Amino acid sequence: MSWPSPLARLLSPNFTITSPSHQYLSPAVNRYLQLILNEHHHPLVIPTVNLTSGYAIQSLVLVISDLSVPLMHGIDESYCLRIPSSGEQASLIAETAWGAMRGLETFSQLIWGKPSRIASGMEIFDWPIFQHRGILLDTSRNFYKVDDILRTIGAMSANKLNVFHWHITDSHSFPLVLPSEPDLAGKGSYRHDMQYSPENVSRIVEFGLEHGVRILPEIDMPGHAGSWAKAHPEIMACANMFWWPAGYKWEDRLASEPGTGQLNPLNPKTYKVVKNAIHDVTSMFPDQFYHAGADEVIPGCWKADPEIQRFLSDGGSLNQILEMFINSTFDYIVSMNRTAVYWEDVLLDQTIRVDKSLLPPKNTILQTWNNGPNNTKRIVSSGYRAIVSSSEYYYLDCGHGSFLGNDSQYDQGNAGNMGTGGSWCGPFKTWQTIYNYDITYGLTEEEAKLVLGGEVALWSEQADPTVLDSRIWPRASAMAEAMWSGNRDEKGMKRYAEATDRLNEWRARMVSRGIKAEPIQPLWCALNPGMCNTVNLI
Amino acid sequence: MSWPSPLARLLSPNFTITSPSHQYLSPAVNRYLQLILNEHHHPLVIPTVNLTSGYAIQSLVLVISDLSVPLMHGIDESYCLRIPSSGEQASLIAETAWGAMRGLETFSQLIWGKPSRIASGMEIFDWPIFQHRGILLDTSRNFYKVDDILRTIGAMSANKLNVFHWHITDSHSFPLVLPSEPDLAGKGSYRHDMQYSPENVSRIVEFGLEHGVRILPEIDMPGHAGSWAKAHPEIMACANMFWWPAGYKWEDRLASEPGTGQLNPLNPKTYKVVKNAIHDVTSMFPDQFYHAGADEVIPGCWKADPEIQRFLSDGGSLNQILEMFINSTFDYIVSMNRTAVYWEDVLLDQTIRVDKSLLPPKNTILQTWNNGPNNTKRIVSSGYRAIVSSSEYYYLDCGHGSFLGNDSQYDQGNAGNMGTGGSWCGPFKTWQTIYNYDITYGLTEEEAKLVLGGEVALWSEQADPTVLDSRIWPRASAMAEAMWSGNRDEKGMKRYAEATDRLNEWRARMVSRGIKAEPIQPLWCALNPGMCNTVNLI
Repeated sequence: MSWPSPLARLLSPNFTITSPSHQYLSPAVNRYLQLILNEHHHPLVIPTVNLTSGYAIQSLVLVISDLSVPLMHGIDESYCLRIPSSGEQASLIAETAWGAMRGLETFSQLIWGKPSRIASGMEIFDWPIFQHRGILLDTSRNFYKVDDILRTIGAMSANKLNVFHWHITDSHSFPLVLPSEPDLAGKGSYRHDMQYSPENVSRIVEFGLEHGVRILPEIDMPGHAGSWAKAHPEIMACANMFWWPAGYKWEDRLASEPGTGQLNPLNPKTYKVVKNAIHDVTSMFPDQFYHAGADEVIPGCWKADPEIQRFLSDGGSLNQILEMFINSTFDYIVSMNRTAVYWEDVLLDQTIRVDKSLLPPKNTILQTWNNGPNNTKRIVSSGYRAIVSSSEYYYLDCGHGSFLGNDSQYDQGNAGNMGTGGSWCGPFKTWQTIYNYDITYGLTEEEAKLVLGGEVALWSEQADPTVLDSRIWPRASAMAEAMWSGNRDEKGMKRYAEATDRLNEWRARMVSRGIKAEPIQPLWCALNPGMCNTVNLI
Repeated sequence: MSWPSPLARLLSPNFTITSPSHQYLSPAVNRYLQLILNEHHHPLVIPTVNLTSGYAIQSLVLVISDLSVPLMHGIDESYCLRIPSSGEQASLIAETAWGAMRGLETFSQLIWGKPSRIASGMEIFDWPIFQHRGILLDTSRNFYKVDDILRTIGAMSANKLNVFHWHITDSHSFPLVLPSEPDLAGKGSYRHDMQYSPENVSRIVEFGLEHGVRILPEIDMPGHAGSWAKAHPEIMACANMFWWPAGYKWEDRLASEPGTGQLNPLNPKTYKVVKNAIHDVTSMFPDQFYHAGADEVIPGCWKADPEIQRFLSDGGSLNQILEMFINSTFDYIVSMNRTAVYWEDVLLDQTIRVDKSLLPPKNTILQTWNNGPNNTKRIVSSGYRAIVSSSEYYYLDCGHGSFLGNDSQYDQGNAGNMGTGGSWCGPFKTWQTIYNYDITYGLTEEEAKLVLGGEVALWSEQADPTVLDSRIWPRASAMAEAMWSGNRDEKGMKRYAEATDRLNEWRARMVSRGIKAEPIQPLWCALNPGMCNTVNLI
């Protein structure tokens, strides 16, 4: 970025954007034009700039090198934005339509006030460090309306995030209507008005395309599948049981949390339903990635099933059962021209896992959530690509206590402070924790290349639409900056102190754009830069 | 409560409420009538009741023993509600208009469905364990609109909470317009549109009266007063300084957090401004309690003032300075017919405190926030009445990390989990922690009588209107139940497990009434009662 002196110019009230026609870029251009003409953003601190007299900026001209590049992993998102100190025209040059959307967002953020001013005499050449920059949202434990999802995707685009990882189903509800298996949602959703129809999905996918955000669907299986039992009890193990019976050891429980039920890989009918599901999902979601779940397969569940008990007493193993399942489904996923994303458990789980020979790195990506940098290292050093969503750094739901009822730790006469917040992944992940996490920590240069990027995750045990915006924002903005431009300054030092003021401003702008991001400081701190810092070791 | 069998009856669409006329009860009656006729609440789990055929309930008749009792501490809030299994009329008998409001709320909560059903064949005689059941809201660090405050007061009433402790001012902004000292808000508020006018206050007070919620104002002093410096720099010590200069020991810092400035008790002008403020506030707020602050008077601030330095070097002490201030202001507060509420620090602070002879228990109440049950014990065993808002149990803001910029603990190559959540009072106080706190723990029966009740507190370093509802609710509901009916069952056992299902339903009802309370469990748990419990020791 080059901005030799802090100049600003007026933006013409007749400002226009000139752009080649493109199915998804054109709606984005219209959207940004409306935003630019109407936002008149009030910064918390008015920028100290020299407003040049004379002509206003009249237009922004977009030049795209290759309009045919589809939205997919690994595309070029770079852009070059030039806002001259004289002349009527600003320019935005990008390799792809998707890079142009990133540049339009930057352009919009350089404008404030009424009449509109724009930072000028500036050139920006900008591109992301990591290709995969996402948010996971769990719509099974609690339901979110389509509008909540669209608003989130819109905010992602404003933060230059590009992957909405939609954890659609789990043990608690199955909200996705699948044409080939309509009973899964018909019986497994919470309510009739808590379902996503194919039309809803198509709207979400289109909305994503118009915002440069890929929609990565996840149908978790074979674990986390209790909700399938309403429609298909015959393909399930341990459905509808109490998750952790009295007196059982923790390792013998039936599910990772309340809500039991895993698909039974020994039943041929299972594959009929599963393949219908994969077929329908890959039809509805064009993304080249398909997330196949495979986390937390719990031994106690399969062991509770009579058919599986027979298989085990005949000398079979739990690993063999999972391998059967992965073998049958992985090839089908690949046959649909998809790269399969799995949770790391499929290879790294202590108890039930498959041999890595079953999952060729060419078609497999592993998403890590345990053990911070250690598991990332294990994944990439085995030659797999990794997506990082460490629960110690990137889980947005943590630190709000346990959702379990009747937790005996509260029974004492006067229970004191509950450790790190009473949830397994407590404490709360602050924006600073998220911002400062180095997702390639401890990797060689070659290994680091296999880290595709990161995802912050909002699991919904204690979240639903009432808290969606505030749980995600502005903490996801912190990851977004770390993924796009890094968390260090030119000298390689962490720049979180400087990021604080920037995040205050950006959070305020998100709020004025309708995203209820939570505040990170008293307004006083933004109005008195530096005064809320600490300069001593705490 | 008596409800021998689970009966319900229809509520007539022409249902009416008959009530004596009363300035504040009559609007409440109208409000509840509209709510009852229009709410048609959908419970998460439809109650299993026997709907009796035959006539519907046509009316509720209110009988009030003494309509002249004003809303104040210690009044009778009991009510007796009878919904017969036959006959057209239900009855609500209360000693005061304020008790009738509590009964109306209960009545409204016994109704659901379309057409409306109401639990019947029921008698309820209900009254609170504790007289003081409140929420503290800090409107200085971040600003809340009048509508946010009104919505909160409305929700308090629905939760049978009766004291809105309004922490109006602090070091960060002074939003309250005082007719005698207009510059305090004119210069000390964040912005012109971030002020509370006398008309706003009057609306809030009236709204409180119509909801049976007292408004207890706090103008914090002599500490936490930096915002006064904009209008009156001459009465301040250490205003506008960096709060914790480099290399200073923690105990030598100038303020408890960023934002310096304490009133200077040695300057006679101070008392002119302070008395104007107290005069105006007691004029605007009719409550018999007046909260005079007095928490966290920081030695480093006063020591930084030249005049105070001279006083100290002449042999004076910091305690003497605080005693001068309390002496002059306490008598003035009492002369306004007010009971003075102070934070416990005024007597218990390690460094700066006054002798207890200055504060006669007759006119003084102490609010405790440190050391859990221990400080409550210290206060009541000295003969003072206590309001409990322990930061270990009742602080709603905690566990969201530190708001300080440039915190060096994040600088390490790969900072791990931040202890209990990175804030001094972390972790997050879960609803279970709040529900299970016994505020008279360890007290004798006589001492326990001096505990007036409790307040959950939302300090606003990291809160503002975007998160107001979800930070307060449903956690304040957990305290509300513990304060009104206790947290134990008839056998004296903690009943938090049973409260979980009840809180799910109540939270859902609050959401449908427009309060964005946060979820405490997946919807699945409410739909499958008991299945999300744990029965093993964790």
